[in-house]
Amino acid sequence: MDSHLIDSTIFGHQWATSESRAIFSEKSRVARWLEVVIELAQAQAECGIIPGDSAEKISQLRTVALPIEEIAERTRQTSHSTLGMIQVLRDLLPGTSAEHIYYGATVQDITDTSQVLELRAVGALVWRDLWMLEDGLLELAVRHRLTPMAGRTHGQPGAPISFGFKVASWADEVGRHLQRLSEGRNRWLVGQLGGAVGTLAFFGDRALDLRAAFCRRLSLGEPNIAWLSARDRVAEFSHLIAMCVSSLARIANEVYALQRREIGELAEKARASTVGSITMPHKRNPEVSEQIVTLARLVRAQASVLTDTLVHEHERDGRNWKTEWVAFPELCHFALAASSMARELVSGLEVDPTAMSRNLGFGASSEHLLSAMSARLGKHRAQGLLQDAYREAREDGRPLRAVLQGIATQAELAELSDVDLGASGAMVDRVVDTAVRRRASETGQWL
Amino acid sequence: MDSHLIDSTIFGHQWATSESRAIFSEKSRVARWLEVVIELAQAQAECGIIPGDSAEKISQLRTVALPIEEIAERTRQTSHSTLGMIQVLRDLLPGTSAEHIYYGATVQDITDTSQVLELRAVGALVWRDLWMLEDGLLELAVRHRLTPMAGRTHGQPGAPISFGFKVASWADEVGRHLQRLSEGRNRWLVGQLGGAVGTLAFFGDRALDLRAAFCRRLSLGEPNIAWLSARDRVAEFSHLIAMCVSSLARIANEVYALQRREIGELAEKARASTVGSITMPHKRNPEVSEQIVTLARLVRAQASVLTDTLVHEHERDGRNWKTEWVAFPELCHFALAASSMARELVSGLEVDPTAMSRNLGFGASSEHLLSAMSARLGKHRAQGLLQDAYREAREDGRPLRAVLQGIATQAELAELSDVDLGASGAMVDRVVDTAVRRRASETGQWL
Amino acid sequence: MDSHLIDSTIFGHQWATSESRAIFSEKSRVARWLEVVIELAQAQAECGIIPGDSAEKISQLRTVALPIEEIAERTRQTSHSTLGMIQVLRDLLPGTSAEHIYYGATVQDITDTSQVLELRAVGALVWRDLWMLEDGLLELAVRHRLTPMAGRTHGQPGAPISFGFKVASWADEVGRHLQRLSEGRNRWLVGQLGGAVGTLAFFGDRALDLRAAFCRRLSLGEPNIAWLSARDRVAEFSHLIAMCVSSLARIANEVYALQRREIGELAEKARASTVGSITMPHKRNPEVSEQIVTLARLVRAQASVLTDTLVHEHERDGRNWKTEWVAFPELCHFALAASSMARELVSGLEVDPTAMSRNLGFGASSEHLLSAMSARLGKHRAQGLLQDAYREAREDGRPLRAVLQGIATQAELAELSDVDLGASGAMVDRVVDTAVRRRASETGQWL
Amino acid sequence: MDSHLIDSTIFGHQWATSESRAIFSEKSRVARWLEVVIELAQAQAECGIIPGDSAEKISQLRTVALPIEEIAERTRQTSHSTLGMIQVLRDLLPGTSAEHIYYGATVQDITDTSQVLELRAVGALVWRDLWMLEDGLLELAVRHRLTPMAGRTHGQPGAPISFGFKVASWADEVGRHLQRLSEGRNRWLVGQLGGAVGTLAFFGDRALDLRAAFCRRLSLGEPNIAWLSARDRVAEFSHLIAMCVSSLARIANEVYALQRREIGELAEKARASTVGSITMPHKRNPEVSEQIVTLARLVRAQASVLTDTLVHEHERDGRNWKTEWVAFPELCHFALAASSMARELVSGLEVDPTAMSRNLGFGASSEHLLSAMSARLGKHRAQGLLQDAYREAREDGRPLRAVLQGIATQAELAELSDVDLGASGAMVDRVVDTAVRRRASETGQWL
Repeated sequence: MDSHLIDSTIFGHQWATSESRAIFSEKSRVARWLEVVIELAQAQAECGIIPGDSAEKISQLRTVALPIEEIAERTRQTSHSTLGMIQVLRDLLPGTSAEHIYYGATVQDITDTSQVLELRAVGALVWRDLWMLEDGLLELAVRHRLTPMAGRTHGQPGAPISFGFKVASWADEVGRHLQRLSEGRNRWLVGQLGGAVGTLAFFGDRALDLRAAFCRRLSLGEPNIAWLSARDRVAEFSHLIAMCVSSLARIANEVYALQRREIGELAEKARASTVGSITMPHKRNPEVSEQIVTLARLVRAQASVLTDTLVHEHERDGRNWKTEWVAFPELCHFALAASSMARELVSGLEVDPTAMSRNLGFGASSEHLLSAMSARLGKHRAQGLLQDAYREAREDGRPLRAVLQGIATQAELAELSDVDLGASGAMVDRVVDTAVRRRASETGQWL
Repeated sequence: MDSHLIDSTIFGHQWATSESRAIFSEKSRVARWLEVVIELAQAQAECGIIPGDSAEKISQLRTVALPIEEIAERTRQTSHSTLGMIQVLRDLLPGTSAEHIYYGATVQDITDTSQVLELRAVGALVWRDLWMLEDGLLELAVRHRLTPMAGRTHGQPGAPISFGFKVASWADEVGRHLQRLSEGRNRWLVGQLGGAVGTLAFFGDRALDLRAAFCRRLSLGEPNIAWLSARDRVAEFSHLIAMCVSSLARIANEVYALQRREIGELAEKARASTVGSITMPHKRNPEVSEQIVTLARLVRAQASVLTDTLVHEHERDGRNWKTEWVAFPELCHFALAASSMARELVSGLEVDPTAMSRNLGFGASSEHLLSAMSARLGKHRAQGLLQDAYREAREDGRPLRAVLQGIATQAELAELSDVDLGASGAMVDRVVDTAVRRRASETGQWL
Repeated sequence: MDSHLIDSTIFGHQWATSESRAIFSEKSRVARWLEVVIELAQAQAECGIIPGDSAEKISQLRTVALPIEEIAERTRQTSHSTLGMIQVLRDLLPGTSAEHIYYGATVQDITDTSQVLELRAVGALVWRDLWMLEDGLLELAVRHRLTPMAGRTHGQPGAPISFGFKVASWADEVGRHLQRLSEGRNRWLVGQLGGAVGTLAFFGDRALDLRAAFCRRLSLGEPNIAWLSARDRVAEFSHLIAMCVSSLARIANEVYALQRREIGELAEKARASTVGSITMPHKRNPEVSEQIVTLARLVRAQASVLTDTLVHEHERDGRNWKTEWVAFPELCHFALAASSMARELVSGLEVDPTAMSRNLGFGASSEHLLSAMSARLGKHRAQGLLQDAYREAREDGRPLRAVLQGIATQAELAELSDVDLGASGAMVDRVVDTAVRRRASETGQWL
Repeated sequence: MDSHLIDSTIFGHQWATSESRAIFSEKSRVARWLEVVIELAQAQAECGIIPGDSAEKISQLRTVALPIEEIAERTRQTSHSTLGMIQVLRDLLPGTSAEHIYYGATVQDITDTSQVLELRAVGALVWRDLWMLEDGLLELAVRHRLTPMAGRTHGQPGAPISFGFKVASWADEVGRHLQRLSEGRNRWLVGQLGGAVGTLAFFGDRALDLRAAFCRRLSLGEPNIAWLSARDRVAEFSHLIAMCVSSLARIANEVYALQRREIGELAEKARASTVGSITMPHKRNPEVSEQIVTLARLVRAQASVLTDTLVHEHERDGRNWKTEWVAFPELCHFALAASSMARELVSGLEVDPTAMSRNLGFGASSEHLLSAMSARLGKHRAQGLLQDAYREAREDGRPLRAVLQGIATQAELAELSDVDLGASGAMVDRVVDTAVRRRASETGQWL
C-alpha cells in the first residue's frame, strides 16, 4: 500500500531514503521481530529455560519466507500486536519447539528491543551523514575563511563577516550534535526484557541471567530495570534528531534566503534536467533547501509527540506506547531524507564572492567607522552622528563620504574603504581546531 | 511500499481505513490529479482557450492505465512535482492536443484543487461517522437518563450523576462539531486556479471566466482571489478535525478509566477471538479506547503543523505548502480510523449499572446532605462539619451515619439514603431536544 | 510581581497591551469573580433560593476594596482556588447573608463563567482590531490595485502581480476570520453553572430556572448541559485567535522580507526616536514585524495546549482545566499585542513602487511571453526554448532580447516590454466587493 | 503588574517559586544585565580597551537603585531593547566613563550572557531538587522493595510487582536526567560576546583576549565562535528540563490514578487546613499531582517553541531570538514549581500496603500459574485454557479455583496463593546500586 507519501513510488524520494525504507519496511520489521524472537530463544536455551533443540528449530525460521497476509489476517482476528505473527511461526515449528517460541515474553519485549535496533541503525546513518557534512562544512569554512560578505541581522545587511565565519557557525553546531550522539549512545542502546509487567516473574530465578544473555546476544546494553513505561531514552534520541535536522534547516533556510535573485550570494547546484517552473521559464528554485525546512518542521512535530509520551501510566500504557509506533519511524524517515539532502546541498553549494562583495554596501564599514570615531568623540556621540549621517545618505541618495565630511576626520574616512572582518578568521580557526581534535578520536562510524 | 504503518498490511487497520486508503492511495491521487487536469481542459475548451477536440482527447486519458513507475522516474529527473506526470500524459496524446494539456496551469492549481476534493471526501466521511455516532450517543443518553453513577472530579467519586448525563455531554459536544462542519463547508470547498503567481495572466481576459467554469465543473465554489499562500481554510478544517477526534478521545479515555477492574462500570465489547494478554490470561484490555486516544494525539500534532503553515511567504512557499502534502493526508487517515473505531466503541459499549450503583459510595449524598444542613446551619458551617465527619468516617472506618449522629437531624439523615441526580435528566432532555431539532434539517450526508 | 515579560514595566508593551492588562490584572480578575458571585446571588434571590436582602448585601461588596494579600494567604492555607476569596468576603458580610454567598456553586461555575466574560472582552478587541485592519488593507489594495511588482514563488521573483493583489489576499483572509468570529460568537458566549458535578443537585427543582436567570443577568447564553469537562468552545476560540495572529504574522513576515535592503519594496514606518542598532548606525530594522511573527508563534503554542485539553476526564479534571488558567490569558495578551502592532504596521507601511518596478527584472514577462509563443509553438516546446534562453541570459550575462532573436517572433518580442498583471485588478475588486457587502451588515463592534 | 498567573499574589505559588521569582523578577533581570555590563567593562580595562578608571566608575553602578520607570520610558522611546537602560546608566556616570559603558557590545552580548547566567541558576535548582527527589525515591524503593501490589497494563491489574519496583523505575529515570544535566553543563555554560554580527570587529586584534577575559570573569566557558544564531544549547537544556518535568508528571499522574478512591493505594499527604471541595465535603483531591501534570504540559509547549527557534536566520533573527525571552523564563518558572511540588509529593506520600494487597485480585497469580502449566501443557495451550477459565470466573462469578479444577493439577493450583514478585527486588537493587555509585562522585550541587 502506498497512501502515505513516504511510501509513494512517485514522491517517496523526497520524504524517505532507500536506507530508511530498508529499515522500516514491513518485511524488515517482521524480520527484525523474528530476529529478536530467535535471540530470545537462543538466550533461553543458553540459560536452560528451553531445550537447545527448540532454540535451533526456532532459529531456522530465519530462512522461511513469512506469509505477511496470513500474519495480517490473524493479527486482525486476535486484536493482538504480535500474536498473529507468533501463531504463524508456531505452525511452522515442529513438535514441542512450537511451545518454546516467544516463551514468557510480552509484546514490548519484542517491539521495544526491535525499536532499539532501529534506533541503532538510524543513529549510525545520521552519524555518518553529519560526520560527512561536518567535513564538507569545515572545508568550506576554510576555503572562505576571509571571503567578505554582509553579516545580516533583522534581515538587514550589517557589518561584514566572512562566508567562512557563517559556515563555521554551522559546523560548530553540527559538531555539538555529533558530541551529543556520542554521549547518549550507551544510554539508548539497551534491550528490553520484562515479561508481563516488567518483573520477569515467568522466568523465576533465572530471570536476570536470561536478560543479560538476551542483551549480550544483540550487542545491547542491559537496563537496571524494565523500561516498559520509562520512555526518556526514546524521547531524548528523538529530540536530538529533531535538533540535528533543525540545524540542517537553518543551513537550508539560509541558502533559500541568500539564493534570492536580489541577493544571489548562494545557490543550490542546478542539475541540467531540473525544470524550475512550468509557467515561468526563467525561474530557478531552491527546492532542496525548501524541502529540508519542511522535513525539519515535520520531524519536530513528531519529536514533541514523543516527549509527550513520557507521561506513561502504570507498567504499560497503550495510549502512549503505541504513539511511538508511528511517530518514531516517521521521524527517522524524514530525518534521513533531510540529512541526505543536506549533504547534497552543501557539497554542491555554489558560492558567488562577487555578489557577496557587491551586497556589502555602505554598511560594511559602519561598525569599523564607529569604532574609530568613538575613540575621538565617545561612543555614544559617535553613534548618534553616524546614525543621522546614514539616514541622510539613504534618504537623500547622497554619497556617504560627502555626508560625512565635517563629521569624520580624513583618517577616519579612510576607514570607509576598509572591510574589516574582525575575528572572523580566528573564529573559523577555533571551530576547525576543535573539530579536528574531536574527529581524531572518532571514525565515520557511530558504533 | 509499506514502511509507514498506515500502509502496513499487518497493522494498517489500526491507523487508517479502507475508505481513507481509497482516497489517498497513489493510484487515487494520480487519478484525481488527472481528473482535475481533464476538467481544466474541458473548462478551457468551454471558454475557447483550447480546441474542443483537444479537451476531448485529454478526457479520454481517464481510461488509460497510468504508468506509475515511469511517472516516478520522470518526476525524479525533472525535480518537479507534476511535470513527470504531464510528460507521460503528453506522450499518450495525439497531435496538438498534447500541447493543450495542463495549459497555463501551475502545480498548485492541480494539487490544491485535488486537496480540496480530498477534503470534501474526508469531510463527508467524518460527517457520516459523527452523525451516526451522535445517534448512538443520544440513544444511550436516553436509555440511561436516570441510571445513577458517581460523578467524578479530580479522579475522585463525588456527587451522583446519571450515566445519561455523562453521555449527553459527549453528544452535545459532537453536535457542536457537526454544526461547525456545516458552517465551514462552503468556506472550504473552493477551487484553486491561479497560474504562475495567482493572477492568471496566461489566460488574458478570459481568466475569470475560465476559473468560474473550472470550479463549476468540479462542483466547487469560486474564491475571490488565488489562495496559493492563504492557507487558513486548510488549517481551519484540520483543526476542526483535531477537535472532533479529541472529543472521541475524551469518550475513549473515559471508557479506559471506567473499565478499570477496580471500577468496572463500562467495558469495550469483547470479541470472542480477541486475546487480551499472552502472558496474563486473565486480562481484558480497552485496546480500542487506547488506540483512539493515540490517534487523537497524532492528529493534533499534524493540525498544529498545519496551523504553523499559515505564515506563508510571498505568492507561493514550498517550505510551508509541501508540509501540507504529508500532514493533511496523515491527519485524515488517523481521523477516519478514530471515527470508525469510536462508532464501534459506542455501539458495543457494555454498561454495568450495578457497578455504577456500588461505586456511588457515601459520597453520593454529600452535596444533598450539605444542601439540607445548609438551610439550618448556614452553608459554610455545614460544610465544615461535614468535611470533618467524612474524614472521620474515612479514617476511622466508622459508619457515616454513626458519625453524623448529633451533627445532623433525623430528617437530614434521611437524605443519606437518597441518590439525588439533580437536573441530570432535564439536561439530557435539553441535549436531545437540541440535537433532534438540528438533525431534522440535516441528513446523514454532508453535501 | 513582574517576573513574566507580560508584567514587565520595561518590556510589557511588546507582549501585552494596556487593554489586555486591564482585563487580566489580578484586581480585575478578582473583581470579575466577585461580579459573577454577585450575579449568582441576585439570580438566587430572584428564584427564591436566598433572601433578597442577602443578595443586596452581597452586591454591596462591589464597592469594597478587596484585600488581595489576605485572599492570597487564605488561598495558600486552604489549597483551594476560590475559598480564600470567599472566606474574606464572608467576613465582610453581616449576619446570615454571609451564609448565602457562593451558595451551592463550585469553583468552575465562577471561573469558567469569568473566563467566558474574558473571552467576550478579548473577542471584542480582536474584532475591533481586525475590522479596522481590514479597512486599512482594503484601502491599500485599492490604492495599489495596479502597482506592479514581482510575484515571488520559492523566494524567487516570478511573473508580476500588483501590490494591491498581494494586499487583497491578506484582506480576504482577515475577512474570513471576521466571518468566523461572527459565526462562533453565540456558541462561545454561554455561562457555566453546574455545582459539584454539573447536575445542580444542590438547587433541587429550581436548578434550571436559576441557571437561566444567572446567564440572563450576565447577558450570556445558556448551555444545554454543564460543560465543566467539555472544552471545545475554549479550544475553538483559541485556535481561531491563533489563526488570526498567524495571518498577521504572514503580513509581518512579508514586510520583513520585502524590507530587506536588497529588495526595499516595503518598510515599517520609522519613528524619529527609534534607534536601529547601537553598533551599526546605518541599520533600520523591521522590529515590529519581527515581534508580530514572534507573538504568533507563542500564540500557536498555547492554542495547541488548549486543544490538547479537550481530552478531559470525568466531570472535572484539574490536570486539563488548570492548564487553561495560564494558556488562555497568555494567548490573549500576545494576540492583542500582535493585533495592535499589526494595525500600526499596516497604517504606517511605506510602499516604494519604484523599487517594486526595478525588481521586476526580466522575469516580468516570462509567463506572458510563454503564453504568446505557446499559441505558435505549443506550450511545452515554448517552455523548453524559453527555459534555455533565460538560463543563457542569466549565466552569460547577455541581454534577454538578444538571446531570444531567432526563437521568438518580433510580435512576441514586443511582449517583453509589457508588464501583464493578469487578473490582479479584477481579483482585488472581488475581494473588496465581498468585504464591502459583508461589512455593510456589521459594525466595528463584535457584540 | 500581575496579569500573568506567575506574577499573581493569590495564585503565583502554584506556577512559580520564590526562587524562580528571585531569578526572573524585573529588578533581578536589570541587575543581572548590569552585572554583565560591569564585567564587560572590567574585562575591557583588563585588556586595555577602556581606562581602568572608567571600569571602576561603571562597577560602582552596582550600588545605585535603578529607576525602572525611567528605563521603561526610554526603552519605549528608542524601541531598542537595552538602550533605555544604557542611557539611564550613562546619565549616572561621570565624565568620559559614560562613553565606556556597553562599549562595542550588542544587545545579545548582554542578554544571551545573562540568559546563560539564568540557565546556570535554574540548572542548579533543578539539580538540587532532582538530587533530593532521587534520594527520597531510592529510600522509598528500598522500604517497599517487596511490598506487593498489582502491576497494571492498559489500565488493568495484571501480575504483581512490588511498590518498590514501581518507585525504582521512577528513580532510575530521574537518575538519567541527573546524568544528562552533568553531561551538558559545560556545553551550555558559555558566554556570548560577538558585537554587531559576531565577529567582534569593534575590538580589533584584542577581540579574542577580551572575550576570554569576559567569560573568565563570569566563570563561563568560552565558545569557539559567536552563537548569536546558533541556539542548540538553549534548545537542548530546555528540552531536558521538559523531560525532567515530564518524568515528575509520570510520578504525579500515577499518584492521581492510584489515589482514586476505588483503588486507594497511594495518597497525597493531606494538610489539616486543606479543603477538598466546597460542595462535596467528603472529597480529598490529588491537587498537587494534578498541578504537576499541568505544569509539565506547559513546560513541554515552551520547550517545543524553543526547539523551533533553532531555524535562526542570518547572524541574528529577532523573530526567533525574542521568542526565547518569553519561553525560557516561563519554562523555568513552571519547572521549578513542579520540582518543588514533586519533592513535597514524594516526601509526604502515603502508601497503603493493605489496599495494594487487596487489589491484587485473582490476576496476581495468572503469569505464575501460566508458567507452571506451560511446563506441562506447552505455553500456548496453557494460555488458551487459562484465558477461558478467567473469563468464565469473571463473567459467571464462580471462584477461580473451582473453575480451574480439572484444568490445573493440584500442584499448579497451589501456585494460586503465591504472589510472585519475580525480579522486582533484584531490579530495585540494581537501580539503587547504580544510583549510589553515581551519587558518590557527585554532590547535591550542580556546580
